[in-house]
Amino acid sequence: MQHYDVLVVGGVAAGTKAAAKAKRENPGLRVSIITDDRNISYAGCGLPYYIGGIIGEQKELLVKTPDALKSEFDIDVYTRHHATAINPQERTVTVVDLETGREQLFSYEQLVLATGASPVVPPLPGIKLGNIFTVRKVEDAVLIRQTAESRSPQNAVVVGGGFIGLEVAENLKQQGINVTVVEAAPHILPNFDRDVALHLENYLQENEISIHTREKVTAFEGTTAVTHVQTSERRLPADLVILSIGVRPNVALAQTAGIALGPTGAIQVNECQETSVSHIYAVGDCAETRHRVTNEPAWIPMGSTANKTGRTAAINITNASQDSFPGVLGTTVIKLFDFAAGKTGLSEREARQKGYDYETVLVPANDKAHYYPGYRNIITKLIANRTSRKILGVQIFGEGVVDKPIDIFATAISLGATVDDVAKLDLAYAPPFSMAMSSSIVAANVMRNKLDGKLKGISPLALAERLQDPSLVVLDLRTEPEFMIGSLPGAINIPAGELTARSQEIPRNKTVIAVCKVGKRAYLMQPLLRQLGIQDITVLDGGIAGYPLPLV
Amino acid sequence: MQHYDVLVVGGVAAGTKAAAKAKRENPGLRVSIITDDRNISYAGCGLPYYIGGIIGEQKELLVKTPDALKSEFDIDVYTRHHATAINPQERTVTVVDLETGREQLFSYEQLVLATGASPVVPPLPGIKLGNIFTVRKVEDAVLIRQTAESRSPQNAVVVGGGFIGLEVAENLKQQGINVTVVEAAPHILPNFDRDVALHLENYLQENEISIHTREKVTAFEGTTAVTHVQTSERRLPADLVILSIGVRPNVALAQTAGIALGPTGAIQVNECQETSVSHIYAVGDCAETRHRVTNEPAWIPMGSTANKTGRTAAINITNASQDSFPGVLGTTVIKLFDFAAGKTGLSEREARQKGYDYETVLVPANDKAHYYPGYRNIITKLIANRTSRKILGVQIFGEGVVDKPIDIFATAISLGATVDDVAKLDLAYAPPFSMAMSSSIVAANVMRNKLDGKLKGISPLALAERLQDPSLVVLDLRTEPEFMIGSLPGAINIPAGELTARSQEIPRNKTVIAVCKVGKRAYLMQPLLRQLGIQDITVLDGGIAGYPLPLV
Repeated sequence: MQHYDVLVVGGVAAGTKAAAKAKRENPGLRVSIITDDRNISYAGCGLPYYIGGIIGEQKELLVKTPDALKSEFDIDVYTRHHATAINPQERTVTVVDLETGREQLFSYEQLVLATGASPVVPPLPGIKLGNIFTVRKVEDAVLIRQTAESRSPQNAVVVGGGFIGLEVAENLKQQGINVTVVEAAPHILPNFDRDVALHLENYLQENEISIHTREKVTAFEGTTAVTHVQTSERRLPADLVILSIGVRPNVALAQTAGIALGPTGAIQVNECQETSVSHIYAVGDCAETRHRVTNEPAWIPMGSTANKTGRTAAINITNASQDSFPGVLGTTVIKLFDFAAGKTGLSEREARQKGYDYETVLVPANDKAHYYPGYRNIITKLIANRTSRKILGVQIFGEGVVDKPIDIFATAISLGATVDDVAKLDLAYAPPFSMAMSSSIVAANVMRNKLDGKLKGISPLALAERLQDPSLVVLDLRTEPEFMIGSLPGAINIPAGELTARSQEIPRNKTVIAVCKVGKRAYLMQPLLRQLGIQDITVLDGGIAGYPLPLV
Repeated sequence: MQHYDVLVVGGVAAGTKAAAKAKRENPGLRVSIITDDRNISYAGCGLPYYIGGIIGEQKELLVKTPDALKSEFDIDVYTRHHATAINPQERTVTVVDLETGREQLFSYEQLVLATGASPVVPPLPGIKLGNIFTVRKVEDAVLIRQTAESRSPQNAVVVGGGFIGLEVAENLKQQGINVTVVEAAPHILPNFDRDVALHLENYLQENEISIHTREKVTAFEGTTAVTHVQTSERRLPADLVILSIGVRPNVALAQTAGIALGPTGAIQVNECQETSVSHIYAVGDCAETRHRVTNEPAWIPMGSTANKTGRTAAINITNASQDSFPGVLGTTVIKLFDFAAGKTGLSEREARQKGYDYETVLVPANDKAHYYPGYRNIITKLIANRTSRKILGVQIFGEGVVDKPIDIFATAISLGATVDDVAKLDLAYAPPFSMAMSSSIVAANVMRNKLDGKLKGISPLALAERLQDPSLVVLDLRTEPEFMIGSLPGAINIPAGELTARSQEIPRNKTVIAVCKVGKRAYLMQPLLRQLGIQDITVLDGGIAGYPLPLV
């Protein structure tokens, strides 16, 4: 029977990190990794880019080989070995060699479960047809790329409009394949708010990726390989299907040891990454964590979190002192063509569901000085607690730099910042990098204006629902040339500069929804409108730039 | 006598912001701006890019014209009017019309001083010669560009290697002019640490900008226009000279009112931007502020701070509620060709001078996933308080993205973060944007290793001073091909993989300085070295990548 001081089951990000860090902390320990896979330590997040050929060689995806782990760190790696059961009393794990079928026992002082997550494969008719792929392992990406290159598929259907699905959609489209994304939820990026996701949907459709939301796949058709995808709405030709409807934590092994799962279905752990069973830790995608805003259990599998939880477990295993992992914000970012979208903390929908008394703003801005060539627009949606003024969450999107402000807010939220704190940050300013008042600070100031009662706003989708309401009148304050791109149905266009002269055109005894390009001019015109006798003013948050529905 | 509720002296960033925000907060107020200048609200930080033609038109530098301030905000702007004296008892300001010479009195309820700062012009022989320029106002940039375009200068000397000087140097070089930078301090970017600044010096010299440090300009020579610059070391041909040796706050007007200056020489203000004299506020570059790390008075003039202090003063003037400005971190960032360097918080030199018990790390990393095309290297120098583990300051430089991690750290420092807090941030990760463990988190973890005693390091310049020390031996653990680019004088090269076989080549009873490409391999090899009987191991911080002096 093999005995190890630290036995790790699973060898992608979290498992490899836990093993390597344990060995660094205490080189005298015997450390081993057991994995079903042929590879260890591969870059799961890079798979879409390998499919698209942006990453040329398969070996670039492999961060460390088993041989390197042995020679550099003296870690024994058992690939193609499947752990079937844990006996926590004996501290043993039953392991089957997938090549030979031979079963053996490994004993451990400390066991680290890094069993990861597996893609959900729905039991739909035709699911076993050829050319239907999930995207989780290096082999998956290799097969998809081979299929794309050798069979010259014309039509690909991506089932699921989350991150992986959209990244693969972009990469297939870049190779000249017609791509259709089918998403059962009301919008793509289901973790984002609809008003944000709709902007991305518009952008992807402009880039000729078809998007069908609120639509379920019901069957796959074909003889040996898939030829069509049947949805609740239509029948789509498809000689390549990417299934990316989500992942589930791999907890079967943990359950053999009686390890408790959390409410999310992933393995429950404390801040030290310890499970409910002594001498057993869980790290990475198979483990539950906490949301740092709600302090509730959360399961948001990410490679970055996997690295951190692996490190925390290793320190706790090997040291008298304890390390703790405080949880996550669900921070994510995606690049699609020249568009990016990121999120950290709660969406508006999540804030509502959790019962927060919150306020939102939608603030277009530039990512660089407006006079510096190459600046691009981004839009920040900020959600703050109305009482504590703490930031609950942020979503940022556009063709400019979004990962920087997302990280500013991720840092701020983690440290309990209010919007007032963010407004006063001393951020790096030079024209090639930022506006003098950076987009994050501008967004925080707009939120302060709202929280302080200086600005009443309405969100784009809330307005869209009320456009038929006879008690409202939409007043578009843009100039005639700006108005040419379209406006909201029924809007009256009076350029801000002509307000005084043309004020009699504004109907009285109605709520005036003031609309401009980004929301600023409408805000600035409030005093003048009041002077002209219009008291009930609401500004369209984010102006026309933030409005994701069709203009007329 | 003109009377204003809010009278603002100075109309660039802070003054214009204070006036516009005051008017927004209370549209009933009479608000005015008085300025010596012809322009208001111009983009001072954009001037180098106008000189280089990156910003094409002068009007792009002008954020708001006086006419726009009047028509859009009902603010009276008096350009070319000079405020000569304040009578705080009468609440009046004496103002001279610079066109007519006419003197008049303005009375105020609240006075906002936004008098800015002026470039230092040393009284050197020849200083009045033609084609010697400072870079502060739009007219300066216009003259420099005209000179560069019409007189085809061959040789430019930039006196002062701070931000503006270097940005102008880059922009002149881009136009084919030979550029020499002369800096009296031991290195360019005097606010940065020398080990960081030397990397930028190397980069600029590779881009054919000559840099002479520890060298003073003693005279300018020429008949009508400058032809040569005499320094303490040499005589440089120069048909264009840029003077950028710093700025001083304009406090003469404040002194006529008996307003107290702070220890920095700028106008002392409290958190509400109030000066020592009632009804008088000071904002922007003329005002002192606090450093958020040391909590000591600081004067670090920046356009971003100007906007924030202007806003704070305006809110305090117009509202019962108070707003406060918590101070600055001296956050800065500069782009030079494809290189960027940024800083927030204290430099190592400042930390030493202020008596902190600090630790430093120097950590090379990538700005994106190593397998994502177009990733670039950056190096993070992190300075932390050894006792509290709080971050004191950060400098980041390289050809990759540096403004994002600078802003992460600026946010973290403002909110009192420790290195442990930063190591556990949930930052945005996707291959096009970051490594799975972002550079900031890696740097924080290296610092944690040092603070926890798992790693003993030596900084590049400290090692350079001790290379002759016979008690040290430098052990270069890189492979032979990596070694080809050079190593430290006297280094022994034993590739990490050959350590066991060749351990007898390592001299005993000496401190071994373990060197590798970025510092990681040397850290990882510590256990093996100890096993081979070498106990006294110190790692070269940042490895060869972080070493800014010539290799042999």
